[in-house]
Amino acid sequence: MSPSFFLGEKMKNKIRVGIIGATGYTGGELLRLLSQHPGVQITLLTSEQSAGKKIQDLFPSMTGILNISLEKGDSKDIISKADFFFMAIPHGMASKMAPFLLSKGSRVVDLSADFRLKNKASYLNWYHFEHANPALLKKAVYGLSEIYRNKIREAALVANPGCYPTSILLPLFPLFKENLVDPSFPLIIDAKSGVSGSGRALDIRSHFSEVDEGIGPYKIGGKHRHIPEIEQEIENFSGTPLPIVFTPQLLPMVRGMLSVIYLKLIPKKIFLEDLFQSYYGNEPFVKILSPGSIPNPKNLRGSNYCHIGFIKDSRTGVVTLFSALDNLTKGASGQAIQNMNLMIGFEETAGLTPMGIFP
Amino acid sequence: MSPSFFLGEKMKNKIRVGIIGATGYTGGELLRLLSQHPGVQITLLTSEQSAGKKIQDLFPSMTGILNISLEKGDSKDIISKADFFFMAIPHGMASKMAPFLLSKGSRVVDLSADFRLKNKASYLNWYHFEHANPALLKKAVYGLSEIYRNKIREAALVANPGCYPTSILLPLFPLFKENLVDPSFPLIIDAKSGVSGSGRALDIRSHFSEVDEGIGPYKIGGKHRHIPEIEQEIENFSGTPLPIVFTPQLLPMVRGMLSVIYLKLIPKKIFLEDLFQSYYGNEPFVKILSPGSIPNPKNLRGSNYCHIGFIKDSRTGVVTLFSALDNLTKGASGQAIQNMNLMIGFEETAGLTPMGIFP
Amino acid sequence: MSPSFFLGEKMKNKIRVGIIGATGYTGGELLRLLSQHPGVQITLLTSEQSAGKKIQDLFPSMTGILNISLEKGDSKDIISKADFFFMAIPHGMASKMAPFLLSKGSRVVDLSADFRLKNKASYLNWYHFEHANPALLKKAVYGLSEIYRNKIREAALVANPGCYPTSILLPLFPLFKENLVDPSFPLIIDAKSGVSGSGRALDIRSHFSEVDEGIGPYKIGGKHRHIPEIEQEIENFSGTPLPIVFTPQLLPMVRGMLSVIYLKLIPKKIFLEDLFQSYYGNEPFVKILSPGSIPNPKNLRGSNYCHIGFIKDSRTGVVTLFSALDNLTKGASGQAIQNMNLMIGFEETAGLTPMGIFP
Amino acid sequence: MSPSFFLGEKMKNKIRVGIIGATGYTGGELLRLLSQHPGVQITLLTSEQSAGKKIQDLFPSMTGILNISLEKGDSKDIISKADFFFMAIPHGMASKMAPFLLSKGSRVVDLSADFRLKNKASYLNWYHFEHANPALLKKAVYGLSEIYRNKIREAALVANPGCYPTSILLPLFPLFKENLVDPSFPLIIDAKSGVSGSGRALDIRSHFSEVDEGIGPYKIGGKHRHIPEIEQEIENFSGTPLPIVFTPQLLPMVRGMLSVIYLKLIPKKIFLEDLFQSYYGNEPFVKILSPGSIPNPKNLRGSNYCHIGFIKDSRTGVVTLFSALDNLTKGASGQAIQNMNLMIGFEETAGLTPMGIFP
Repeated sequence: MSPSFFLGEKMKNKIRVGIIGATGYTGGELLRLLSQHPGVQITLLTSEQSAGKKIQDLFPSMTGILNISLEKGDSKDIISKADFFFMAIPHGMASKMAPFLLSKGSRVVDLSADFRLKNKASYLNWYHFEHANPALLKKAVYGLSEIYRNKIREAALVANPGCYPTSILLPLFPLFKENLVDPSFPLIIDAKSGVSGSGRALDIRSHFSEVDEGIGPYKIGGKHRHIPEIEQEIENFSGTPLPIVFTPQLLPMVRGMLSVIYLKLIPKKIFLEDLFQSYYGNEPFVKILSPGSIPNPKNLRGSNYCHIGFIKDSRTGVVTLFSALDNLTKGASGQAIQNMNLMIGFEETAGLTPMGIFP
Repeated sequence: MSPSFFLGEKMKNKIRVGIIGATGYTGGELLRLLSQHPGVQITLLTSEQSAGKKIQDLFPSMTGILNISLEKGDSKDIISKADFFFMAIPHGMASKMAPFLLSKGSRVVDLSADFRLKNKASYLNWYHFEHANPALLKKAVYGLSEIYRNKIREAALVANPGCYPTSILLPLFPLFKENLVDPSFPLIIDAKSGVSGSGRALDIRSHFSEVDEGIGPYKIGGKHRHIPEIEQEIENFSGTPLPIVFTPQLLPMVRGMLSVIYLKLIPKKIFLEDLFQSYYGNEPFVKILSPGSIPNPKNLRGSNYCHIGFIKDSRTGVVTLFSALDNLTKGASGQAIQNMNLMIGFEETAGLTPMGIFP
Repeated sequence: MSPSFFLGEKMKNKIRVGIIGATGYTGGELLRLLSQHPGVQITLLTSEQSAGKKIQDLFPSMTGILNISLEKGDSKDIISKADFFFMAIPHGMASKMAPFLLSKGSRVVDLSADFRLKNKASYLNWYHFEHANPALLKKAVYGLSEIYRNKIREAALVANPGCYPTSILLPLFPLFKENLVDPSFPLIIDAKSGVSGSGRALDIRSHFSEVDEGIGPYKIGGKHRHIPEIEQEIENFSGTPLPIVFTPQLLPMVRGMLSVIYLKLIPKKIFLEDLFQSYYGNEPFVKILSPGSIPNPKNLRGSNYCHIGFIKDSRTGVVTLFSALDNLTKGASGQAIQNMNLMIGFEETAGLTPMGIFP
Repeated sequence: MSPSFFLGEKMKNKIRVGIIGATGYTGGELLRLLSQHPGVQITLLTSEQSAGKKIQDLFPSMTGILNISLEKGDSKDIISKADFFFMAIPHGMASKMAPFLLSKGSRVVDLSADFRLKNKASYLNWYHFEHANPALLKKAVYGLSEIYRNKIREAALVANPGCYPTSILLPLFPLFKENLVDPSFPLIIDAKSGVSGSGRALDIRSHFSEVDEGIGPYKIGGKHRHIPEIEQEIENFSGTPLPIVFTPQLLPMVRGMLSVIYLKLIPKKIFLEDLFQSYYGNEPFVKILSPGSIPNPKNLRGSNYCHIGFIKDSRTGVVTLFSALDNLTKGASGQAIQNMNLMIGFEETAGLTPMGIFP
């Protein structure tokens, strides 16, 4: 493990960072954030389809700021071009490439789902491919930064969580960790995401005229691939499996995610605010809103923060949790950099402190 | 009760219709729909603040189509200017005005909440005013057209339902009517509305820059005024009260509502599709989607249709209902006209058959 | 030419209408409008890729309203299934299919560009294909309903105008017809369109996350294919060619088009309002706004109306024209039906009178 | 003038900054950016209506990040609480308050219009108030950072430009400075702004349901208050007045501005790209796009960059300029901080280097 760096001043010996698959939205978000990070320099960007182009051709927002060209990712010599890699390539491909990137001692954060699930059969069931390197599943650490901080620090390979799981597991963790959730009541999760969560690839479900002025539930009835990831972690937290009811929905907005979770607690005197504060009061990126305040992802666009709110209905006893974040930042690339900071020994917040853009 | 008219040809003696409060969004939607209705002519539009102006000054969409000026609503002679009235004025005002409109034998559909609740104490608790005419509460018929069709036909005063209650009660009715809902499981309703549902009055919660690219839950924790309306009807359907957990949320879209309802059924062999079809298969405006299809209010903008979908999760036994409509049409002015059609004896669908605008 | 029908009552012998290419946005808009048309019945819908499916699978807005299945368009027997055809298929394909549809005496409105330009060389220059049936170019009538009404009545084949040309030519017609435009001043057109104008086919330029919260000029510098169409008609109106500067831009909205046109008039005493009223005062679908009122396409969604406004700047003498419409209705399918009404002898407004949805 | 600071490391003696009027959108944007600025600490926030509240009550995006309470702005002792002031209060109020803030040697950037115009009569004509301190008009420096950099460094009071003028004057400056613009051709500016440009105050023109899915030209015909500001600077640049035609339009997006400018150049051999590069090639925040690339404000949200594109139409000789920026950042608060950096002697880019959020 690397020693801790102080990042108040510009580092002289910056870590060289490569992004495998830099042209999608999570790749672009990594670039946006890393370009402000005091401890790294971006030395490699790969793309299969856009190799040879400049990054500003794909992201005009980088015009005159980042002057880097894209390279093919299949060359052997990319390994020497960076000390630390982010993989932002599709499911199934990351698991094939990871051993190569790890082979020379580099460390890797994978933003795909390829190392999130511990059970290799899940990849066949949920992702419909045979995992290429199941042995790595055990070594990979699930990168929910606040929960697995210590393991992440030591990891060579971190499996960055999905956006839905991040927004759902953060509020649930204290409740399951303390075994407060009533297992006789199904855990109901009504989750809403901005359209950027479904990526830059063309799809009728992301076509402007089909999305705007509507709300589209999809993959309902236990079909969404984030379900095994959420259930795996709930079992990790509490020691007991609990099936969830999960309703993902696409909203007519670009960034942002709001998960609304309904559950019951076992009869026990608990002050929810105290509980959440005891878990997250010192966390830099997780903020517990005062009772009555309700999170809105609009406040968090472009930031690495997660806002958590909660309310208990006196008549039914149902507890409602609200969890908001930016699906591309804390839900993907921001958390990936938070994990890199932990792995390298940077301050955990390095490059990630700007607040969300509002309005 | 009037005899039934055939509306395939233009009627010679059209019903004269007045709209009390014509300048808000529900007033404008009444005008849009009534201007195409074969059996009515609009003879009176009132407004307190815009009296003297032309309706096209408030709604440029009506330029060159509707050439009517707005009048003050407090004059005694408005009663002679129409045979049928819609009230689209704020809560508290409608209950004061209704007796006057009814006094000469006119019939009235009230789009406010003033006659929806049977218990006058509820007005004090939820709306914070003393009801001006509690005796009328008993006479008023709750205007959920598909459920109370026969009573509506005979009514002098119809209390048009709220948008959330309409979208929620339609899918719930068959289940509660057949006593299929497991009362030990709280009824959870996660509902999303377009911003037009909060009206044309200025409010920071409807300010474009505050709303766009976000999702705002509001009045959570049992505070929304549609709760007593929904619970009153659930008790009417099944004979037993059942408290609900209700999470209303404003989405960055103008029109449209999607209610997602989570519940459990008692153990009994039921085919949900058959059940819904038996209740709604012949309804002109309620459509049961085939299993696997999920409603999206985007398909229903400007139309009087309600789309219902459902799915049962095999692992948890939870049933999820999806109900989509346009909050200004089936959720307000469209249903108000449907009720007028019933009251007057027109074909129930008169003026309401156009499908939603897509995309 | 057919005799004129009175459409106040439902017709007994409805015209059978077929839509060639029914699954795109203009096809869907034709269906939405024709389903309310008193004089037609839809008897044929074709699609190459979705043949065999029900139309409601492509347009859930039609669920339970239109129960028609899609057929392949390449069969010989489609000619016998309808009396009147709309072609809503891509450029280049329509010119190949038109002779077949016309061969048995059917009449056709083509929504593609294939018959809009009189000069066959323009197809090579602007659309990059060799026109398959240049002889038909002379017979086809350009379907700007208000301008070419009499020719349209007699036509067997009508070339329905593009959305930009419709919105631009309607306000320009009186000025060029009266030779009032100063030719020494370039005609500048800054035009904004909703994203539905670029169709249902997948394209990164219509991808929600790329479009929302931005404004994208495209094909600037004289590259947009509507330029030759606009310039051809300007020359038709005035007898003299005048090149235009055209800046099309995609806005983050689904429907709607606003063209802002800057020009100078020759020195002559003209009252613009009188001029516009003399040309359009009796038109059912073109409305001249009072001076100071500015059109907004928001007021016209789903309607066949076009709103025109104008202002003269006293200091520079520049006249600014504003023209708003719905690109899918008056800009495409609504005008196509208006043209069908003229061709068949229906009332010109049949099926097209509903006002726009607002808000 | 202060000495230049190196900002690579955190400064020990930070400048104390106060924001007069911190609760609107420009106030919030100042806060967002200043909270990341290495050389300042925020020591004073004032608000008339929200004094006593915490800033996070007004901006939940600052929850747990900025813990400051709002104070009344009318107290004498605010002058001692900061070394540098931003005024983000309404027109008419800033001119009254400025002398007080300047009296103890503090320096001030005013984001209102109160010191932008040199001619005090203009305030009566365009803003309808008698200027309270016309003597200060001469001392105030117009804060278009790239153009008046040297004067800004020395100024005690900087009048921060309006958003439209910033986006319009930056591309025009080189052309007018070199006297390349043909004065016989009117300067036509078709400008589009996100709704946040009209502020946080409630207004029907910013009401979500009125704005979304439309485009609203407003204050056309020479009525917008940014006209005298633009014309004053054009005359400053070239020495000759030239009236403009200005069409401001609100788009359904929160942030972002695109100005499209049409003009003719005098006949002279000019390579526009070279010209723009010679003026802006070394500017940190103004980027000249390569020919054929067109700016889109979507790429610049939250950033201080301005993207300029241009094209010359060969047939008409008209040159079209495109200028994109974020109206709240480079169009207001970002440029205000850029000016502060110049005034204090910080690196001009301090706190302002992050690129725009995309998508």
